[in-house]
Amino acid sequence: MPKPLNVAVVGATGLVGSQLLNVMKERDFPVGNLKLLASSRSVGMKVEFRGSEIEVLRAQPDAFEGTDIAFFCAGSDISRELAPHAVKAGAVVIDKSNAFRMDPDVPLVVPEVNPEALADHKGIVASPNCSTIQMVVALKPIQLLSRIERVIVSTYQAVTGTGKEAAEELHEQSEAVLAGKKASPVVYPYQIAFNLLPHIDSFWDNGFTGEEMKMVLETKKILGDDDIQVAATTVRVPVFNCHSESVSVKTIHPLGALRVRQALASAPGVVVADEPSLGIYPMPIDASGRDEVFVGRIRDDLDDPTWVHFWLVADNLRKGAATNAVQIAERMIQEGLL
Amino acid sequence: MPKPLNVAVVGATGLVGSQLLNVMKERDFPVGNLKLLASSRSVGMKVEFRGSEIEVLRAQPDAFEGTDIAFFCAGSDISRELAPHAVKAGAVVIDKSNAFRMDPDVPLVVPEVNPEALADHKGIVASPNCSTIQMVVALKPIQLLSRIERVIVSTYQAVTGTGKEAAEELHEQSEAVLAGKKASPVVYPYQIAFNLLPHIDSFWDNGFTGEEMKMVLETKKILGDDDIQVAATTVRVPVFNCHSESVSVKTIHPLGALRVRQALASAPGVVVADEPSLGIYPMPIDASGRDEVFVGRIRDDLDDPTWVHFWLVADNLRKGAATNAVQIAERMIQEGLL
Repeated sequence: MPKPLNVAVVGATGLVGSQLLNVMKERDFPVGNLKLLASSRSVGMKVEFRGSEIEVLRAQPDAFEGTDIAFFCAGSDISRELAPHAVKAGAVVIDKSNAFRMDPDVPLVVPEVNPEALADHKGIVASPNCSTIQMVVALKPIQLLSRIERVIVSTYQAVTGTGKEAAEELHEQSEAVLAGKKASPVVYPYQIAFNLLPHIDSFWDNGFTGEEMKMVLETKKILGDDDIQVAATTVRVPVFNCHSESVSVKTIHPLGALRVRQALASAPGVVVADEPSLGIYPMPIDASGRDEVFVGRIRDDLDDPTWVHFWLVADNLRKGAATNAVQIAERMIQEGLL
Repeated sequence: MPKPLNVAVVGATGLVGSQLLNVMKERDFPVGNLKLLASSRSVGMKVEFRGSEIEVLRAQPDAFEGTDIAFFCAGSDISRELAPHAVKAGAVVIDKSNAFRMDPDVPLVVPEVNPEALADHKGIVASPNCSTIQMVVALKPIQLLSRIERVIVSTYQAVTGTGKEAAEELHEQSEAVLAGKKASPVVYPYQIAFNLLPHIDSFWDNGFTGEEMKMVLETKKILGDDDIQVAATTVRVPVFNCHSESVSVKTIHPLGALRVRQALASAPGVVVADEPSLGIYPMPIDASGRDEVFVGRIRDDLDDPTWVHFWLVADNLRKGAATNAVQIAERMIQEGLL
């Protein structure tokens, strides 16, 4: 039995923070003292954890005294401001935000893919963007068979990726539209109910969005190959939970769908759901609440044996965020890094 | 003023048939006598057209006497059964279904793309699949600049592509899910509300769906180049109307997003909606009710100048079906083919 750790959760009342508490309970994560931290809006709220009511405290620089591990589940600004204080107080920070992911001193880790990167940590470990995590879990077993030349991915991303208010907005707008009323966008720039937004995060000068560039840059870093050419189109869809992705991969050596399916079937963290003749393929409603990446529709290209195409779905709040963060911590405990 | 034509519409009470009547009104299509034909379910219904109430008659082999042009807006089975009778009766058939699209004796036409194919018609002209039409309208101006080597497309297809019952199913299921109830799938194999189905049409042995293979095969035929490598992933999304597509194109010669944007901006049937910094990009809610194909998010690949990426949206009932059929007829009138 590993020794209990003093844990802090920053952003404890958000969608990812709540899910993180669930995941720690489910996986019997060795929590000693638990500090729940949040912005002033949530201070004073009580949150249940393993039978105790824990009061939410203010996330501030001096909140990390005695903390062994701090999970940051809030935005990049909060991480940039407070993570250095947590490290100074002696905690290891596992950061879900975009703040440090591309910092060469910060490992960017998906435990099924590049756990070896953890050894080099200097106090902060970053968990990748949700849409990157689920893709690299499926790319890694392919990369083990052949270098990957190019990835073209189009995403279908759920509103929980934005947060609680976005999920409420989809709910309210859907009710309005079904009743023949106008939708009032607040969180998103346009109506999300029964619509699609080819726009996640802000636009870069190169025409890609921040979300698309995360998939490009993080994939290279996690897979340890700067030469992988990644082109992403990220799209917000009117789905509450679970991101889906249509992925085309070109490898240096021709692999074929059969070998790719076999490799995926035995890969950690992957469930192959690929029996189209029986109506079996990954869907958001089936992946919600699960920790695995579901891969299906695996098929050969019709013309070029170096391409293969597939479809994958994962719970963006769990494997895409909370579960990956807890898995990072578990791995660090196993390896004596924590 | 062109001489009025005797027009028959098969499937007159369906979503595409109704839209076809609207489009003929809007475009002042020279309709003389109008016969509305449908299955026995709709026989006896009255439909308004230019101030007259027209009774729906049964679609049957002897219904085409005196018809100059018969628009088929029903399923492939109906077209296979009745189109030969319409041709025998002297009508030109413009068929929206999949029945004859790949028949070498049948032109498969998008008027902005390959109007020259109409000259060879032998009584039947096929209108392509909705998701193909909107893609080839955008591919043609690119093909005029350079041969296209490969197209990778992921679709986001609306439920009106399936029909009226599917739109009702999305409405009812959405209400149920929002009220915390279970969705009951009837038209689709699984819940479509707040979910995604990577499954349109039936699965082929090669792992692609019929819908995906339509995009592959029809694109080659319409663009007149069997060597274009097309890989499609077609996905049903909880959107009522308008199909969207994330398209990546590899050309023999490097073109660059700037030249592609210019070519698209001056191409017939295309509206470039591509000012991301101003929040301008194509969306289903904006394209609904319009006849153009809206293209945006046009951007260079980050690594390879022979790839370009974009996003396009069109009204699948209009340009994807009714409008394209009427445009075919208009073009045939212009060229004295009708």
